[in-house]
Amino acid sequence: MKRNIYLENTELKEALENYLNRDEMKNKLDTSIEPVSECLGRITAQPVYAKYSSPNHNAAAMDGIAVIASKTFYASETNPVILEENQDYIYVNTGNVIKSPYDAVIMIEDIVVEDDRVKIYSPATPWQHIRPIGEDIVIGDLVAPTNHQIRPIDVAAIYSCGVSEIAVYEKVTVGIVPTGNEIIQVHEEMTEGKIFDSNSQMFAGLIKEMNAVPNIYSTSEDKHDKIKTAIKKAVKENHIIIVNAGSSAGSKDYTKAVIEELGTVLYHGIAIKPGKPTILGIIDEKPVIGIPGYPVSAYFVYQIFIEKIIEMMQKHKSQNEEIIKAKLSKRIISSIKHKEFVRMKLGKVGNQIIATPLNRGAGVLMSLVKSDGILEIPQNCEGINAGEEVEVKLTKKKKQIENTIVSIGSHDTILDIIDDLLHKYNSQISLTSAHSGSMGGIIAMQKNECHIAPIHLLNEKTGEYNMSYVKRFLKAEDMVIIKGVKRQQGIMVRKDQVAKVEAIKDFIQDDITMVNRQKGSGTRILFDYLLKKEKINQSQIKGYNHEVNTHTAVAAAVKNHSADVGIGVYTVAKSFGLAFYPIGEESYDFVVRKSNINDERIKAFIEIIQSNVFKNKLDELGGYGYDNIGEIIQIKGE
Amino acid sequence: MKRNIYLENTELKEALENYLNRDEMKNKLDTSIEPVSECLGRITAQPVYAKYSSPNHNAAAMDGIAVIASKTFYASETNPVILEENQDYIYVNTGNVIKSPYDAVIMIEDIVVEDDRVKIYSPATPWQHIRPIGEDIVIGDLVAPTNHQIRPIDVAAIYSCGVSEIAVYEKVTVGIVPTGNEIIQVHEEMTEGKIFDSNSQMFAGLIKEMNAVPNIYSTSEDKHDKIKTAIKKAVKENHIIIVNAGSSAGSKDYTKAVIEELGTVLYHGIAIKPGKPTILGIIDEKPVIGIPGYPVSAYFVYQIFIEKIIEMMQKHKSQNEEIIKAKLSKRIISSIKHKEFVRMKLGKVGNQIIATPLNRGAGVLMSLVKSDGILEIPQNCEGINAGEEVEVKLTKKKKQIENTIVSIGSHDTILDIIDDLLHKYNSQISLTSAHSGSMGGIIAMQKNECHIAPIHLLNEKTGEYNMSYVKRFLKAEDMVIIKGVKRQQGIMVRKDQVAKVEAIKDFIQDDITMVNRQKGSGTRILFDYLLKKEKINQSQIKGYNHEVNTHTAVAAAVKNHSADVGIGVYTVAKSFGLAFYPIGEESYDFVVRKSNINDERIKAFIEIIQSNVFKNKLDELGGYGYDNIGEIIQIKGE
Repeated sequence: MKRNIYLENTELKEALENYLNRDEMKNKLDTSIEPVSECLGRITAQPVYAKYSSPNHNAAAMDGIAVIASKTFYASETNPVILEENQDYIYVNTGNVIKSPYDAVIMIEDIVVEDDRVKIYSPATPWQHIRPIGEDIVIGDLVAPTNHQIRPIDVAAIYSCGVSEIAVYEKVTVGIVPTGNEIIQVHEEMTEGKIFDSNSQMFAGLIKEMNAVPNIYSTSEDKHDKIKTAIKKAVKENHIIIVNAGSSAGSKDYTKAVIEELGTVLYHGIAIKPGKPTILGIIDEKPVIGIPGYPVSAYFVYQIFIEKIIEMMQKHKSQNEEIIKAKLSKRIISSIKHKEFVRMKLGKVGNQIIATPLNRGAGVLMSLVKSDGILEIPQNCEGINAGEEVEVKLTKKKKQIENTIVSIGSHDTILDIIDDLLHKYNSQISLTSAHSGSMGGIIAMQKNECHIAPIHLLNEKTGEYNMSYVKRFLKAEDMVIIKGVKRQQGIMVRKDQVAKVEAIKDFIQDDITMVNRQKGSGTRILFDYLLKKEKINQSQIKGYNHEVNTHTAVAAAVKNHSADVGIGVYTVAKSFGLAFYPIGEESYDFVVRKSNINDERIKAFIEIIQSNVFKNKLDELGGYGYDNIGEIIQIKGE
Repeated sequence: MKRNIYLENTELKEALENYLNRDEMKNKLDTSIEPVSECLGRITAQPVYAKYSSPNHNAAAMDGIAVIASKTFYASETNPVILEENQDYIYVNTGNVIKSPYDAVIMIEDIVVEDDRVKIYSPATPWQHIRPIGEDIVIGDLVAPTNHQIRPIDVAAIYSCGVSEIAVYEKVTVGIVPTGNEIIQVHEEMTEGKIFDSNSQMFAGLIKEMNAVPNIYSTSEDKHDKIKTAIKKAVKENHIIIVNAGSSAGSKDYTKAVIEELGTVLYHGIAIKPGKPTILGIIDEKPVIGIPGYPVSAYFVYQIFIEKIIEMMQKHKSQNEEIIKAKLSKRIISSIKHKEFVRMKLGKVGNQIIATPLNRGAGVLMSLVKSDGILEIPQNCEGINAGEEVEVKLTKKKKQIENTIVSIGSHDTILDIIDDLLHKYNSQISLTSAHSGSMGGIIAMQKNECHIAPIHLLNEKTGEYNMSYVKRFLKAEDMVIIKGVKRQQGIMVRKDQVAKVEAIKDFIQDDITMVNRQKGSGTRILFDYLLKKEKINQSQIKGYNHEVNTHTAVAAAVKNHSADVGIGVYTVAKSFGLAFYPIGEESYDFVVRKSNINDERIKAFIEIIQSNVFKNKLDELGGYGYDNIGEIIQIKGE
């Protein structure tokens, strides 16, 4: 088996300069003449000049009478001038033509009508209340330059000076060629090893947002000839071609070989993360880009290369980039081997924007969905320390970030429900939750990096929940606990193993593997407490060190035979169809700084958790108590 | 003639609160189930939960071999472990399913292949290089909440967890009912008193940008019954109805009466400028808004009321608003009778954003086209002084503003051509020009409010142009003059008057009216100089005080019989088909601060004016000399 396992590691700057400056990227778009009303978002290929002036006549700017100014010069409060209709004046409405001999307009409010005469008490100055010809646009004026993207007001301006059709570039077409035996479409049946072709859909959306046209081809099997045929067809029919995956160096990665046969591969392997196994090629004078299959890699390679090529062809840059300064909440270690693009969660806590890195895996699409911005770490940088100021390129609106409740702490499905209900009843405010476990939440709150820390922390001595932790770890300031829910924790077992496991002691079996929660999570603390109580040693349990971060991840691992048992809450066990043996009821509460309790966002949060619609949701899920929900317990700082 | 001339003057805040909080504005949209790929930009009506996990199996995260970790524990540099294919390991590509007994992946780079065996030199830890089931999304996870606008990455995420269709709101429909005898469509013939219906096109574009659907109805004549029929139909077929004009109190303004007959008029007359004659009504539980006809008024009434109603119905706020702090360059006087929305031109000069008000006329659509932002002046404010810091709501991207060359000074058609060529050859940089005359340019340069001041100022004593003015008025700093063009100034006469006027002394005739340029413009200075030379008194000339701001405005006034003669440049006379008698050649140059001469924007400007394509344009226009164009003359400050 021959494998070409080493990729190049070309610096991004070099690849960008050499690839994007090639003649193939220049605008070679045809120009077409289109009705202005169809041109929203299109790019002008020629300047647009006014065909008529606007207004095209001297026009009354007010409702009133048109007069001959010189006949009004002697009017005064004490000596009104009397004018005769159709001789000295005519009635006009706003917009009416003003013609010789009339050269001024008096507002209707300023005249006294007496049948077919009027009295006026002050003189009119020549040209008063008249919009002169061409006040807005003069015939021959430039209304829109070349390479300008047409906005609604441009459509209006072009239309108002009598131009009905304008020259715009044809739309850039981008062919998307998905490859891979494992790729299925969303309507096909999911079987083991398959993945849904989300990349093509993502590219299509991004391309549409740029007013270009995506053409998705049917998926090619991992066969050299099939891929070659597909790429050939796409090259013929599009300005730019994306080959979606097969760009790496696996035994079935044919993309590079095919591009080499049909044209030239300029680069294979760029020093970026994610996105290293990128291919930059040319076939028949058209850019052909081989994209790595991981969705996050695919996204960045699109942003870094393809978006820029589309802009160059369109001769128009969106200049959409907004950068914000933020304080890094967590140390990030990066490699000097590549430039890294880290998805960041942002939140305004106090007067500061706090930036927290999201999951850095190239396969974690949700890190993009949840991200508020991107932090670029240069190639020569080994990392950035917590507390440093960083510049983050926004992927959401600043306002949206300011309206976000940042929750860091323990995970529960109800956080998703609260977020959904916030959107439903107050679409401006949203909740984002980072799942770092209860102690992670406490630490984030210490550093003032979140508004809300959901926790369920057992005091092993008193059996009481949460309060003692807040008193101990957050004593620097006045805090409050917003009472949340009581919930059932228990053992989750797959039904085929249900005969073997009923209690924690049953975890100690050769053919039973558990999946655990991460250290610092309330569930882990509870589990370790119970182990101690029953005098069980960790090493007796298979899989004790296999940690995941959420209840649902535990349930999924059990469901899918990665493990047999785990600890988690009732609702999750239920929704995954797992057996559940209760081991205790706990308090899942929300810690908030007292100084934040009147923040609009926190008020909206409390309103939601006290609402009947939320309580009904809890009943539906089952396993939750909510007697004191929304109650506020004050805890004085020292 | 009965006229209802007085409108109310309701405070904006009151009108917004009472109108927008009515039940009629609430979301009453139907929900439909649509394929995810068609949902870009749509708003979710229900939360979207994952149908499958992603990945849906434990998957290789690297190309390499899948191994049983426990069999590798003793591998080391000195004691490699030898593994047998299909027994101890199998080859895997990124994404392949990893199943029992395999529980780790070793990268292809880290193995040494010997036929169907491999040697490894370090142990694999369990689960290394394996993407666990649900690493990205776990079945049941919330992928998108209710009332969320679907972005490309949302499409991808939803698709990747096996959801093919989602519930979204139907699109909001907005009926646009144009009214007025003077309104024509762009393909119809322009005759006196007509105006092209640009408002409907502007509304349609703005509505489309919000992912809503505009329905433009055919234009209704100014007849009560026709308007009534049109509104009735639009109410039946849309969620929101805009009645385009006829909202004022002129003799043909039927909108209010019709809405009252069919439903309720809640407000008529809002304390805003522009936009006062607005009607806020309800018919059959649907909002019906009567819009003033001036395009700028129409735009603001859309933004203030209709955009908000669409957002409320969609249950989604765009949160697009970006605000910038800027220094006001010119005093603005406003009235305490209304809240005013002033269109602003912004430019970054030095480290400061300078904000200059554009034409405040409600009919000047180009003030919107050219604007970079909107300054809101509260109702209780009488104005803002020059030099004060103001907050401007951006209508363009910040980056775009930073890439703009701000030109304030004398007007010439070549400025439009330079802007067009800049767009054509460097689509990031643009030129905006405010036409305040040559002396206006000098003053703006003194205050550091522009990058470039185009001037043509005659020194009456020496007959030389520009230099002496820069030395006298801009001596505080080192300056440069970038040489521009020589151009012919002359008398422009309409051809039917050509027999009567050949020289300036011919302006003194009873049946000859002139149109003049504004004080401080180079043309005015030249004209006044010639009058003095010929010993002509201003008062002898009819129309001497009728001032306009540009050469083209002079030509348009002459062409359209507002005047008979004027002074201006050859090119403009030519393009308007006017007779032209030269009165002198002048130097039209560009003043720039020396410290700005290496600014990227200024460099691009010089490149354009020295280009052959620009010189060819000048030849085409005629009347220009360009021997020294682009030459730089340094003028030392004191």
